Amino acid sequence: MKPGDIKPYIDGVMGRNRRMVAKTITLIESAHIAHKEMARSIVDKLLPHAGNAIRLGITGVPGAGKSTFIDTLGMMLVEDGRKVAVLAVDPSSVVTGGSILADKTRMERLSVHKDAFIRPSPSGGTLGGVASKTRETMLILEAAGFDVVIVETVGAGQSEVAVASMVDFFLVLMIAGAGDELQGIKKGILELADAVAVNKADGDNILKANLAKYQYETALHYSASPSPHWSPPVVTCSATESTGIREIWNIVTAHREKLSSVGALEMKRKRQSLDWMWFLIKEGLTESFYKNPQVKNMLPRMEREVLDGAASPITAAEKLLSCLNER
Amino acid sequence: MKPGDIKPYIDGVMGRNRRMVAKTITLIESAHIAHKEMARSIVDKLLPHAGNAIRLGITGVPGAGKSTFIDTLGMMLVEDGRKVAVLAVDPSSVVTGGSILADKTRMERLSVHKDAFIRPSPSGGTLGGVASKTRETMLILEAAGFDVVIVETVGAGQSEVAVASMVDFFLVLMIAGAGDELQGIKKGILELADAVAVNKADGDNILKANLAKYQYETALHYSASPSPHWSPPVVTCSATESTGIREIWNIVTAHREKLSSVGALEMKRKRQSLDWMWFLIKEGLTESFYKNPQVKNMLPRMEREVLDGAASPITAAEKLLSCLNER
Repeated sequence: MKPGDIKPYIDGVMGRNRRMVAKTITLIESAHIAHKEMARSIVDKLLPHAGNAIRLGITGVPGAGKSTFIDTLGMMLVEDGRKVAVLAVDPSSVVTGGSILADKTRMERLSVHKDAFIRPSPSGGTLGGVASKTRETMLILEAAGFDVVIVETVGAGQSEVAVASMVDFFLVLMIAGAGDELQGIKKGILELADAVAVNKADGDNILKANLAKYQYETALHYSASPSPHWSPPVVTCSATESTGIREIWNIVTAHREKLSSVGALEMKRKRQSLDWMWFLIKEGLTESFYKNPQVKNMLPRMEREVLDGAASPITAAEKLLSCLNER
Repeated sequence: MKPGDIKPYIDGVMGRNRRMVAKTITLIESAHIAHKEMARSIVDKLLPHAGNAIRLGITGVPGAGKSTFIDTLGMMLVEDGRKVAVLAVDPSSVVTGGSILADKTRMERLSVHKDAFIRPSPSGGTLGGVASKTRETMLILEAAGFDVVIVETVGAGQSEVAVASMVDFFLVLMIAGAGDELQGIKKGILELADAVAVNKADGDNILKANLAKYQYETALHYSASPSPHWSPPVVTCSATESTGIREIWNIVTAHREKLSSVGALEMKRKRQSLDWMWFLIKEGLTESFYKNPQVKNMLPRMEREVLDGAASPITAAEKLLSCLNER
C-alpha cells in the first residue's frame, strides 16, 4: 500500500481484519506527525460505523483482582456470543515503564480467544494524550464489530475521571478489608461509580465482603450519583469462582435499558463528545503555544526570571502570550 | 487624579492609606479592560514590596465555625501587634449571589479593628479568575504592610487546591461528629493540610472532639504530606472559648521556621509563582480562542454538529483551532 493511503486501513477495520485493526491502533498511538494526520482521517471516516458497543469502564486499587475479573467477565461474554475488546488507560506506564495489561497473559483465557482483543495502555505522555488515544482506539474497535469495549484503569489519580468520561457504565472494584488508606483513595471515586462490586467474596472472605458491601452502600448513600435516573448498587462477587459475574452484567444491561428509555444514554454520549472536543481544543492551544518559535526562545528565560523573582508571573505570562500575536 | 494614572494607587498603597488600598483592590476586581491593564501595572510595580506576610489558608465545611475562628485568631494577632488581612475565595458566590465574608459582621470584633482589613470574595466568574484576583489582592495588602494574610475558602470542590497553591500554610478546620458524609468530602483535603484543627472542642463536646482528633491523626497517617519536612499535626480548639488558638498559631510559626531553615519555604513560593504563570498562560490561551471572530462565528455550529453526531469531536476541534492560524 502507498504511504499515506488510508483506504487499506478503513477496509481492513470494516472487514474485521485483526491485523489491520492492530496496525490502525499502532497508527493512532504513533507520535509521528504524518501518522497522526492519517489516524485522524481514519477515525473520522470510521466514526459513522462506531458507537454500537456497550462501553464499560472498570477501576480498582492494585490487588482488587481487576485482571482476573475482566478475564472471567470477558470469557462469559464471548461465550454468550459477544465480541469483547479490552483497553487500558494508565498514564503511569510512561514513568514506570510498567503498564497495566502490558502482560497480556494476566488475562490467561481471554487473551487467546478469537473473539477477544486486548490492547495495553498507549505510552502517550500525558493522561490527556493516553485517554484521547484510548478513545480513538475504542471507536476503531467498534467499527470493527466489537460489541463490548472494556476500558481498564488503575485506582489512583485522575485517570478514573478520564475513563468515566468515555464509557457508558463505570464499575468500581473493591475488596474487603483493604484498610482505611485504600478506602480513602477510593472515596472520590464513588461519585463516578454506576456500580460497586466487592470482589474476592469467596471462602473465609465472604462475611468480610458482605460487611464491606454494607459499608459501601452507606458511603454511596451520601455520594452524588452520576445519573438522576440510576441508584448505583453494591454487589459482591468472586472472579476466581465465577460467582456474581452474571449479576454484574445484568446490572450493566439494566442500567443501559433504564437510561436509554429516558434518552439519558444518548445525552450522556453527546455530552462526552462535546467534552472531548473541548479537551482537544485546550490541548491544541497548549501545543501551538509550545511550538511557537519565539515562545520556545523566551520560555526558559522567563521561567528562570519568575523563579528568581526578577519577573512577576503576570508580566512573564503576558510577554509569552504576546509572542503568539507577532509573526 | 488623571484617568489611567497609576501613581496615586502605588503611593496610596505604599503609604498604607486604607481608602486607596480598597480602591486598588476594586480596580483588580474590575472586569473593565482599561482597569485590568492598570491593575496589572500596579501589581507589577508593587511586587518588589510584597511577600513579607505570613500567608495562611483556612478551609472547613459549613458549620465548622470558620468565621468565629478567624475572628478569634485575627483578634489575638492584632493584639500581638500584627496587621491582619482576611480574603476569601468562593467561586460559588457568582452562582448563588451569596459569598463567604460578604457579611463582614460575621467577624464582629475583627471587622471593626483598625489593624484588620476584611474583603469578601471577588465575583470573578471562574474559580481561576477569583483565585487570580485574590492572589493579586494579597500582594497589594502585603505591600500595604499587612503581615498576616488569611485566605478563607469553603470546604468543597477545587477551591481548596487554589487556595493551598497561594499560601504558606494551609489549615483545615474540622468538627466532631460531622458524620461520614462530611468526612468523605474532606478526605481529599487532608493531603493539602499542614495542620488539622477540630473546632468546637468545648463543653459536652470535648470528648467527641478528642475522638475526632484521633481519627484525623489516623487518616493523616495514610495521607501524603504536602512537605517532606513537615508532619501535619492535629489539634483541638474552641474559637468561642479562645482555647487552643495560640497553640495553632505556634504551629504556623514552627512550620515557617522549619521550612525556612532548609530553604523549603522559599522554594514553595517560587514554585507557586511558576504555577501561577502557567495558570495565566492557559487562561490567556483560552481567552484569545474565545475572542477570535472566526471562532465566535463557527463555535455554535460546531458544538451543535458534535452534539448531533454530524461532526466528530476531532474534526470540530481541528476546524476551530485552524481559525487561529488564519487572519
